[in-house]
Order: sequence, then structure tokens, then C-alpha cells
Amino acid sequence: MTTSRLEAFSDGVFAIAITLLVLEFRVPMGDGARLGHDLLHLWPAFLAYVVSFGTIGVIWVSHHAVIDKVRGADRLLLFLNLFLMATVAFIPFPTAVLAQHLGGPGERAAAVFYAGSLLMMAAGFAVVNRHAFRAGLFEVSPLRAPTGWRVLNLGLVLYPVAIALGLVSPVASVLVCIIVAVYYGLPPARVGRPE
Amino acid sequence: MTTSRLEAFSDGVFAIAITLLVLEFRVPMGDGARLGHDLLHLWPAFLAYVVSFGTIGVIWVSHHAVIDKVRGADRLLLFLNLFLMATVAFIPFPTAVLAQHLGGPGERAAAVFYAGSLLMMAAGFAVVNRHAFRAGLFEVSPLRAPTGWRVLNLGLVLYPVAIALGLVSPVASVLVCIIVAVYYGLPPARVGRPE
Amino acid sequence: MTTSRLEAFSDGVFAIAITLLVLEFRVPMGDGARLGHDLLHLWPAFLAYVVSFGTIGVIWVSHHAVIDKVRGADRLLLFLNLFLMATVAFIPFPTAVLAQHLGGPGERAAAVFYAGSLLMMAAGFAVVNRHAFRAGLFEVSPLRAPTGWRVLNLGLVLYPVAIALGLVSPVASVLVCIIVAVYYGLPPARVGRPE
Amino acid sequence: MTTSRLEAFSDGVFAIAITLLVLEFRVPMGDGARLGHDLLHLWPAFLAYVVSFGTIGVIWVSHHAVIDKVRGADRLLLFLNLFLMATVAFIPFPTAVLAQHLGGPGERAAAVFYAGSLLMMAAGFAVVNRHAFRAGLFEVSPLRAPTGWRVLNLGLVLYPVAIALGLVSPVASVLVCIIVAVYYGLPPARVGRPE
Repeated sequence: MTTSRLEAFSDGVFAIAITLLVLEFRVPMGDGARLGHDLLHLWPAFLAYVVSFGTIGVIWVSHHAVIDKVRGADRLLLFLNLFLMATVAFIPFPTAVLAQHLGGPGERAAAVFYAGSLLMMAAGFAVVNRHAFRAGLFEVSPLRAPTGWRVLNLGLVLYPVAIALGLVSPVASVLVCIIVAVYYGLPPARVGRPE
Repeated sequence: MTTSRLEAFSDGVFAIAITLLVLEFRVPMGDGARLGHDLLHLWPAFLAYVVSFGTIGVIWVSHHAVIDKVRGADRLLLFLNLFLMATVAFIPFPTAVLAQHLGGPGERAAAVFYAGSLLMMAAGFAVVNRHAFRAGLFEVSPLRAPTGWRVLNLGLVLYPVAIALGLVSPVASVLVCIIVAVYYGLPPARVGRPE
Repeated sequence: MTTSRLEAFSDGVFAIAITLLVLEFRVPMGDGARLGHDLLHLWPAFLAYVVSFGTIGVIWVSHHAVIDKVRGADRLLLFLNLFLMATVAFIPFPTAVLAQHLGGPGERAAAVFYAGSLLMMAAGFAVVNRHAFRAGLFEVSPLRAPTGWRVLNLGLVLYPVAIALGLVSPVASVLVCIIVAVYYGLPPARVGRPE
Repeated sequence: MTTSRLEAFSDGVFAIAITLLVLEFRVPMGDGARLGHDLLHLWPAFLAYVVSFGTIGVIWVSHHAVIDKVRGADRLLLFLNLFLMATVAFIPFPTAVLAQHLGGPGERAAAVFYAGSLLMMAAGFAVVNRHAFRAGLFEVSPLRAPTGWRVLNLGLVLYPVAIALGLVSPVASVLVCIIVAVYYGLPPARVGRPE
């Protein structure tokens, strides 16, 4: 099976999940007399939107970089990718939870839940990447695991840190999530891509 | 008419329906003092998400396997496929009903409604498959009905069982739905694919 | 400009609008003790879903049939098509209004609003079709206006009838909308396609 | 990297964001006895829908015009485009805010927020366009900045005007937003396209 359908389906889920993030914003109700003030108090929603959009965006770029080098998909890759898609499509929910509760009494639980959901997505990407590497599905078999995999190793280390941090300082937890996204987004040369 | 537009449209509906499933999750409101607890109590929503995502996912994989072998679509196939898409696009609603009511007094009705909706989707897939087989639309006419059709026969048998079970034990009903999804997802060799 | 991007964008809007229809369904709340009963009382929502899904579906099929014969798009076609897309993307709202109010005191207004929205979509399709015909954008210029155009003429006549009927009998109004959708969906031979 | 994946992803986000606009409409509740009246009072929502749909639509057309001429995407273009997509996907929220509060005490804040969001989108488009120009990514390097860029300059000037106007007259502010959209949509000859 060629990877074109896999890519088209994945692109669809990425694009829809990233666009559904906007649904976390809830229009301030009431008579609107203090609407400007109410909009400014949505800062956790804006923060959550930017972090989730950025993280899904860089995962999408990395997903492309990996799948582009895959010459054919076996059935297991299809289902591992389906698992990854389930974690991507889930992100709008923890994003909305974070947007609603950051700055309130539930912010610790919200930050833990949010970082945990990003960890699931990173794990989903890692298993796709790892299976493609182990099953020899890449067009040119890399001598070492491809870059994305090693980069993800960082995510697999840092997201648990973010989870633990969330119990203490939710804002610091979100900051770690931002760092991972920025790191993913750095040009390959900066993260030691072999070629 | 070639099948490329049919595929593109179907891929779109599959990808959107599967991604809209996340909208069944409702952010716990209140002051968030017990947010961790509230999130844990969303277990029916997590279960429903996983089952629906998995089922739509394997139907999507099977749909590809069938349409890939179709050399051309006639008008009836177009409309039967439209019916299938209507059943796929509907799944987020019974999923939300199950997520909301599993574990409560309405769980029997919710489980029956959920399994019934999956039965409709399986029936939609069966009529697409059956028409393509009978009208000779496959590139290489299989001697017997294609695998998907026979696999679906299982779905057409097991989903009614799940509906009946829902009246007694909603959790057992959902379990049967999981079994069907896993069975759909098994590699073809395991389900007697002819080639 | 080739029509492939136009088609891809239109396919996206059609697929998303048709899939968003499911969001009109609202999960019955309360303790769920009468959930089965509550679900049965959603019949207006089921009816509205089927009619809207079917109507958008056949407009999508007709849109393909027309655009497939267009050899190139001019700027005006692009914007007329954008107008058509605005009417297609709007359908989930009148569908939700109909689903909510059919059978209640507001059913007359809901039926009028619903049929009016379908009329807008039919008008949007008509202007796309008409411009393509008049501007000579078709690959093979038909001697007469293409079928879709004449078919739509029927829609342009019957939807106003449905609007008027809505003031008297909302169910009869919806019935007329169903008739138009079925008529659109009939094979071309049945509606006098020239070739 | 070719631009085909970039285009597919962008098309997806454009199509989804434009279709999600319909979710700003909220079905009038109550017993529906005055439903016709209630629907007429949704005029701010209809206005906001048309303006946002039109603006995203013309940005989409302009985005195509630009990306079509780009022969290859570098990593920075990918991320600048991701930023543009974040601003496009965000539009349904300010649109809903405007729809809810235009005509009420919060209309000034709503108009400022709305025009500010359109400014962000115009800025997103401008940086994509500008980077492609400066980095020499266009197939045929234009002697001057491409049309879209200069057109956007107008947007970058007029949207701040709309923001300032929003503090005084929200309707005038929306009117300026309409003017920019219409101007974007004019045929290139009218806006001094070099070729």
C-alpha cells in the first residue's frame, strides 16, 4: 500500500484538529458592558490556543518529514498511525480544559492533564516512527534511528517533567510544553540530523 | 466516473467525523477545586471516544480496501456511498449520548442506541460493498464476495447481539462493539481473505 | 486557472458542512431515566438531518458533474462559487433551527427559514452553472443550458412553493424539500439530459 | 520541499475555518412562539458571517495566487504559513463575539477585537508573502513585490483604521472591513498587477 492515502487522511485529521482548537473559546455572555475586560481575562485560552496550535503544527511538519521517507505502509503502520491520529484529534479537549481552569483552583489538574495529553501524542508519533524504522519501511534505511525519533525522545523525557511540574507550578508546566514545541520546530541542523 | 472524487469526499467525511468525536467531551465547569476527580469521572467519555475512533478507523481502512479495487463508480454506488457517509457522520452523536449516560439510569437506552448506530454504519458499508460486487464494478471480479463483505456479515450479526445485550448489560454491549472493531482490524490472513 | 483547486476547496466545504450537520443533535440531559423516550422525541432532528444530508449530497454530485466539464475558471466563477460555498456552509444552522422547533409553536417560521436557506443554495448553484454556460467555460459548449441548470430551475420554482407551504403546513414544506432532493438525485436520463 | 503538501494543509484549514463560521449561530431557544422575530434579530450574526466568509474567501484566493508562484518552500515559510493558519483558524471566535455583541453595550469592544483579528490575518499573509519575495522562492522573481503584498499593505493600513473606528462607531468599523474584503476581491487589473 502506498502512503498517499495515509498522508491524505493524516493531513485531514491534523488540519481539522488544529482548526477545532478555536472552539475552546467561549463568547463572553452577559450584557457585554465589560466585554473588553472579559476578553482580556481569556488570556489562558489564548495561551492554550497558541501552545496547542504550535505543538500540533510541528508534529504535523515532523510527521510529513517521516512519512515522506516511507516507501510503503504495512497494516501495523496504518493502525499505529490511527492511534497517533486519535491522540492528535483529542488535543482540543485538554486545551479547552487548560483554557477554562488555568489561573483557577483546578489549574494543577488541568496542567497535568494537558501535559499528559501531549505526552500521549509524542508517544503516538514515537511508535509510528519506531515501527517504520524497525520494519525497514524507509526508502533509504538510515544507519541510525531517524532524527524525528531522537527529537521525540526529548519530548518523551520533557513531557513527564511537565506533568510533574504541573503539580507544583502549572505555568512552569506549560512553559516546558512550549520549549518542547520550539525545539521540535528548530531546523534539523540544530538537532543533529544526520544528513 | 472515476473513483478519485468519491475517495476524496469519503476521506473528508471520515477524517472530519473521526475528529468531531472530541466534541463529545465537555469541560468540567464549577470552580475546578475537584477537577482531577471530575476528569477521572469522564471514563465513559474516554471509552466511547476510543471505541468510536477505532470503529470509524477500521471502517475507513476497509472502505479504502474496497474502493481501491473498484474501477469505476456508477450513480447508484455514489448514492449508496452517500448513505454510508450519512451513517459515518452520525456516529459522534450516539458516541456523545453513550459518553453522557453510561453509568447512569439511561445507560441501557444509550447502549442500544449506540450499537444500533454502529449497525447502521455496518449496513451502509455492506450495501456499498454488495452493490460494487453485484454490478461488476471491481477491477478483477472476485469469484466470491470480497472479504470486507464477509467480515461485515459478522458485524451484521454481532451488532444486533450488542443491541440485545444493551437491554441487559450496557458494558457487555460496548464490549461486543469493541470485539467487532478489533476483528475488522485484524490482518486479512486472519479472516480468510481469498488472495 | 485550472479547476482542480476550486474542486478541492469545494469538496472540503461540502464534506465539512455535511459532517457538521450532526452537531444539531443535542444529547438529552437530565438523569436519563427516560432516555429512550427522549431519543424518540428527537424525530424532527433525525428528519432534518436526513433531508439536509441528502440535499447537500445531491448538490455535491451535481456540482461535480458541472465543474468536471469546465475547462478553466475565471475570477468571477471563483467568487460565484465562493457564494455557493457560503450557502452550503450555512445549511447546518437552518437544519438545527428546524430540528429544534419542528412540532412546536415556532415550526412555521422554522420551515420557512429552512426552505429559504435551501433556495439560497439552489440559487448559488444556479448562478455558478449559468455563468459557466454564458462565459463559455465548458469544455464542450452544450447547445442548450446544461442539465443541472434546468434541474435547478425546478428547485428555483419548488423551494418558493416550500416557503409558502411552510406558513400553512411545515411538514408539507419539508416534504417538498425532500421531493426536490430526490428529483436532483434521479439518474440524468430521467431528467432529460441531452447526451 | 515542494509546496503541494503546504497547499493541501492550508486548503484544509481555510475550508474548515470558513465552514466552522456557521457555529457562531445559536438556535433561538424558548418555546419558539416568536421564532420569526428572533431569527430577524440575528442580523448581526448574518452580517458577521458574510464579512468573515468573504474575507477568509478572498485571503484564500490570494494565498493560492501567491503559493502557486512559489517553486519551493523553505522551513521558515512553513512556519510563517503555520502562523497565518493560526490567524485564519482563529477568525470564527471574533466573528462569534461580533455576532453576539453588535448592537449591544459591548459592541465597541467586539468591533475592535474583530478588526484586530482581521489585522492579524492580514499580517500573517503579509509575512508569508514578504518572506517568499525576499528569499527568492518565487518561480519567476518579480521585479517588484508581488501584487498581493501591495494589496495587503492596504489591509495593513485600513484594519488599524477599522480598529480605531470601532471605538467610535462599530458599524462603520465593520464597513471598513467589508471595503478591504471587496478590494482584495477585485480583479488584479484593478489593483495594478504588474503582468
